[in-house]
Amino acid sequence: MIPSAVIEHASQTQAVNLEPLFAPRSVAVVGASRTTGSVGNAIITNLIYGGFTGVVYPVNPKTKSILGNRCVKTVEEIDDHVDLGVIVIPAPQIQAAVATMADRGTRHFVVISAGFKEVGGEGVKRENDLRALCQERGLTIVGPNCLGIINTDPAVSLNATFGRGMPAPGPFGLISQSGALCTALLDYAKGVGIGFSRFVSFGNKVAVRETDLLLALAADPLTKAILMYVEELSHGQEFIETCHRITHGPNAKPIIAIKTGRTSEGAAAAASHTGSLAGSDEVYDAVLAQAGVLRVDSVKELFDCAEVFEDQTLPNGKMTAVVTNAGGPGIMATDACIRSGMKLTRFQEYTLKSLKYQLPAAASLKNPVDVIGDAKHDRYRAALDAVAADEGADQVLVIVTPQTMTDVTQIAEVIRDTKGFCGKPVVACLMGLVDVSAGVKILRDGGVPTFAFPEDAMRAMSAKCRFAAWSRRPLEAPRRFEVERDAVARILDEELAAGRPQLIELKALEVFRRYGFPVVPYELARTADEAVAAATRIGLPVVLKIVGPKILHKTDVGGVKLNLGDEQAVRQGYADMIAGVRDKLGADVEIWGVLVQKMLPKGREIILGMSRDPRLGPLLMFGLGGIYTEALKDVAFRLAPIDERTATEMIGSIRSHKLLLAFRGEPASDVPAVADALLRLSQLVTDHPRISELDVNPLIVYAQGKGAMVADARVILTGN
Amino acid sequence: MIPSAVIEHASQTQAVNLEPLFAPRSVAVVGASRTTGSVGNAIITNLIYGGFTGVVYPVNPKTKSILGNRCVKTVEEIDDHVDLGVIVIPAPQIQAAVATMADRGTRHFVVISAGFKEVGGEGVKRENDLRALCQERGLTIVGPNCLGIINTDPAVSLNATFGRGMPAPGPFGLISQSGALCTALLDYAKGVGIGFSRFVSFGNKVAVRETDLLLALAADPLTKAILMYVEELSHGQEFIETCHRITHGPNAKPIIAIKTGRTSEGAAAAASHTGSLAGSDEVYDAVLAQAGVLRVDSVKELFDCAEVFEDQTLPNGKMTAVVTNAGGPGIMATDACIRSGMKLTRFQEYTLKSLKYQLPAAASLKNPVDVIGDAKHDRYRAALDAVAADEGADQVLVIVTPQTMTDVTQIAEVIRDTKGFCGKPVVACLMGLVDVSAGVKILRDGGVPTFAFPEDAMRAMSAKCRFAAWSRRPLEAPRRFEVERDAVARILDEELAAGRPQLIELKALEVFRRYGFPVVPYELARTADEAVAAATRIGLPVVLKIVGPKILHKTDVGGVKLNLGDEQAVRQGYADMIAGVRDKLGADVEIWGVLVQKMLPKGREIILGMSRDPRLGPLLMFGLGGIYTEALKDVAFRLAPIDERTATEMIGSIRSHKLLLAFRGEPASDVPAVADALLRLSQLVTDHPRISELDVNPLIVYAQGKGAMVADARVILTGN
Repeated sequence: MIPSAVIEHASQTQAVNLEPLFAPRSVAVVGASRTTGSVGNAIITNLIYGGFTGVVYPVNPKTKSILGNRCVKTVEEIDDHVDLGVIVIPAPQIQAAVATMADRGTRHFVVISAGFKEVGGEGVKRENDLRALCQERGLTIVGPNCLGIINTDPAVSLNATFGRGMPAPGPFGLISQSGALCTALLDYAKGVGIGFSRFVSFGNKVAVRETDLLLALAADPLTKAILMYVEELSHGQEFIETCHRITHGPNAKPIIAIKTGRTSEGAAAAASHTGSLAGSDEVYDAVLAQAGVLRVDSVKELFDCAEVFEDQTLPNGKMTAVVTNAGGPGIMATDACIRSGMKLTRFQEYTLKSLKYQLPAAASLKNPVDVIGDAKHDRYRAALDAVAADEGADQVLVIVTPQTMTDVTQIAEVIRDTKGFCGKPVVACLMGLVDVSAGVKILRDGGVPTFAFPEDAMRAMSAKCRFAAWSRRPLEAPRRFEVERDAVARILDEELAAGRPQLIELKALEVFRRYGFPVVPYELARTADEAVAAATRIGLPVVLKIVGPKILHKTDVGGVKLNLGDEQAVRQGYADMIAGVRDKLGADVEIWGVLVQKMLPKGREIILGMSRDPRLGPLLMFGLGGIYTEALKDVAFRLAPIDERTATEMIGSIRSHKLLLAFRGEPASDVPAVADALLRLSQLVTDHPRISELDVNPLIVYAQGKGAMVADARVILTGN
Repeated sequence: MIPSAVIEHASQTQAVNLEPLFAPRSVAVVGASRTTGSVGNAIITNLIYGGFTGVVYPVNPKTKSILGNRCVKTVEEIDDHVDLGVIVIPAPQIQAAVATMADRGTRHFVVISAGFKEVGGEGVKRENDLRALCQERGLTIVGPNCLGIINTDPAVSLNATFGRGMPAPGPFGLISQSGALCTALLDYAKGVGIGFSRFVSFGNKVAVRETDLLLALAADPLTKAILMYVEELSHGQEFIETCHRITHGPNAKPIIAIKTGRTSEGAAAAASHTGSLAGSDEVYDAVLAQAGVLRVDSVKELFDCAEVFEDQTLPNGKMTAVVTNAGGPGIMATDACIRSGMKLTRFQEYTLKSLKYQLPAAASLKNPVDVIGDAKHDRYRAALDAVAADEGADQVLVIVTPQTMTDVTQIAEVIRDTKGFCGKPVVACLMGLVDVSAGVKILRDGGVPTFAFPEDAMRAMSAKCRFAAWSRRPLEAPRRFEVERDAVARILDEELAAGRPQLIELKALEVFRRYGFPVVPYELARTADEAVAAATRIGLPVVLKIVGPKILHKTDVGGVKLNLGDEQAVRQGYADMIAGVRDKLGADVEIWGVLVQKMLPKGREIILGMSRDPRLGPLLMFGLGGIYTEALKDVAFRLAPIDERTATEMIGSIRSHKLLLAFRGEPASDVPAVADALLRLSQLVTDHPRISELDVNPLIVYAQGKGAMVADARVILTGN
């Protein structure tokens, strides 16, 4: 189901098979300890008490046994193949220990100990050495500086962490950059009755990336949804492609992420125009959206969102039916439904008739259906039977407030049964905590996602709707245009060789022209006569711009003249410009001539740009010109390469995109022409990694069907 | 502490003394019942089992006793003064029952029964009759169609509801428009250990408004914070003033509200320019902000927010110190701190030295202070002593993740003790649920607001910061300008008398001029000669606009000519205009002449407006001109009258307000002149309720110090 282009691309990243890491038959704990409260003791205790189904070898030169397990003094003493080494010794000894175990055939490690990159100085060197060892010997290391890994599959039952006890088995895989947060997440999950399939605290990522772990969780049949906590991501495009593979097709699994931490380094990285607009959090928002990852803001939301995915029935659309026994919560649900981008079903005639026949006169039949405060389970059943069968309802939310007459447990059974047969997502909201607890248990046991409040329920349902739509949408390979790729490579070679990493406009325009952008007609003139001739060929009025290898800020030196309407003006303009520029910059400034450009008719001004994020990759930017971009910062970002749908979404995602629609007699702008330019830009920066930064400012866009035109452009190269 | 102007204004609304309602000595339950599961039974059971300290009289003609209490057949049989009547009989019998009790001296009632406004038809009449009875006899009625009232004060212990049991006593007063939601709220509160002082489900509000109830809760010494759930508000300005009284001064109490329900009627009410922009939810947002009410989006947030107010220590500012034993949650806290508008303290030298001396080398001393995963309570104590003493820290958040070495309960004791002596708000975040539960109990018992996640903690702390700043800010009476109020009243009289509810521009401009707005210079000319003379006096270039009693859409009939630069152009323009308009509208169209206006130099165009919301009152609007208002809907609303600070906030609250600042060489706009115009507008619409709608479009604003100018205006009156 995954287009081959994507598989091909993703396979370049060499996904590692991590199954032996999660399901080892033998584990050595290097640094196991008898001392209660120590990390080395916590690990061995969790392994043994966690019911690990393989064999554990505690390694400790000073102790004979731990928890009844005979210790070995060194790994060399183990007369068995060790699938997994768990390392809890001080950081300086780790390199040697891993090397020794690798010599004896161990390929997978979890390094718990801290003392690496995070402490700076010596630690950074230590981490680099460990990375080199991994690459050289083909090892897999989770960590260093992590809590460890867990696999609750009863066939394995591995708890190689120093957390407090084993989580309950369940449908969620969790990977986390913060170990301590994990202990809190697991404790919270225990409290609300959420279980996990696998769990990884990945620490410093010396030799296993998030993408490897995501693929491992995706391949695990016991994992229905993947939760992640990350503080920063790298290799943006690889991350996006991996997530695409996981979130599409018949076995699609949702990825739900908390991303924290706004790296100051990200913001400082690019002082360029595009870069300075890219506060790193907006960029992460864009990358996660592009990857199809459901981003949440809090742990509560993470678990709420996960809960709806425990039921794998996906809604066909976003039309939602609500049944309630109280008006207020019905209004709350309505607000939340609309605010989270879903819609309320308009019931069919048949449904309304059925409701009218079965419900009391005071009931409200319109969605939300209010079965009234004295409703018992029979009335809920009647209402649910009717609305769940309505073709216009993609999913159902059932709200129960514990009123005097409410038989909560029986209503819970009705909801569970409805979910069992209706083939649509059914979510329950049992408002309260104490009086409804028996009902909550029935629903949880019956696999019905259950919430205390309608807003939480709707927010989670909306995430599932978005995932359903996303997972069904066909993966597009980015469109490839016929372009003059080699010619552009030569231009970049020449300009770099000539020591001009910032291209003069003449060259920048040529780059865009050779990538099929519609570029304003221009010619280089070396004399006033040539300028007049060029202007005649191009058509008056024209713009003149000075061209010289060192002249970058043309306007500042009088090197731009606009709207020259006749031959005389062009001739005079040429002479004035040459004289003026020499006057400002010195008589010996190198001038190659004057660029004669067509003076373009007015249109909507747009800015396109690209800057390379040092961690994530080439970041495309789109915004309207002038104040919209500069004062209102109303811009959109995506990582290149992008497909057509992404380009269209990017354009639609800025607040001011309405200005591109028909408005007050002005015609709509040619949005497809803008999308085309974005796609070509995506190809250009993907083909030529030496382009470190570029802007098209402005791209002038005309009315629908009339296209767009590059009026000015800037391209900056890196030497590497 | 409350400026007398405000008290005076608020006292006009005649606050009712509701104490006898909340603390009756005798209660009659009319419609008490033996039938388990009935509402009449639930009420009497709650009263008796709830430990009511007064006397209860069950009224039921068919039963001798209920729960051992001797029944009376009718209220006439009661040989005692009845302070409170609780009515649970069918709606048609209620009017008579209330009247009979009123005859016998009862002044306060809770009408539980439904069957009034909410059922339409006969019910509406029934409700109007009941309201008339209340007004005539000076009665207080909570309801009808409500859950009832509760007062947990041990001296009273009144539970006159049909909910499930009595909530625990606690510091929160709750008023709610939805009865069923209350049952859920109370049940949830029971589960999380939150208690209430007083509780009112106010139903249809026949004779007691939210404002009466708010004042009653404000006066109650046991209530520290007021929670409310509302679906709609009325009498906006009264609501705002009541909330101001409650939320200011030394006994200020916070009001935290959930407002749901977007009334379609509100949106439909005013098809006018201002009105159509006022989707009712934006309006409620504005009104609640103006009232100083903390608006929350969900029940969870309501309780979170309430929790921080259980501790009444208010922060002096928004500088926040964070202590954590894990990096990840520290980052989450940092993100949440910044996102919710607070700041992280930069510690003083002394604090840093103290931390450095006491914490291990690996600890992070910068805010958030990371005491590292193996920290026990002694290290928390050292860190908390240092940061809580830092003058730059207005409040402290302490995060504890339950790691292997973490002694949660002892750390909880340290946090509780720190809170005890430091005199600043201290909030705890014990991450997780199960392992931390003993610690949570210690903290809750010690009065320390405690959360499971840092985002929730920070959001609540931010609400407290906003409340602290708000409650200290002096209440300003709206500034009154010297204006020609009577002259404007006469204009309105004349125009209404002449059957011109939409004022012609000439009159509209005069209204604004008499209220001290800077208005574009204009004169009415009746001949071409007069027009030329006027233009000369005003100064060229000028604009001509046709004036006639029936000519409203001037542009459409060729009745506007811009930028006429010399006498000849003015003369010709006058002639052409008269001829053109007669050509379009017929030779006999009444023309009063031509308005000669100065052609204003370019400036920033702004729109001011007002429309009267049928429920809330006169709604002022502010936005930038053209696309900003019409396409981007980037406008701000406030209810008139407003004070200077509100005017300034209103201007700053639109997204595009940055365009009023200095930008790209353009000078900043004269914002004080805009604020002045808003204040005058506020006075104008407050002085003249007959103005149902108006626009200043545009107000042209010039550079700082250069003022603003009304260029065009529209005023619409109502006959009443």
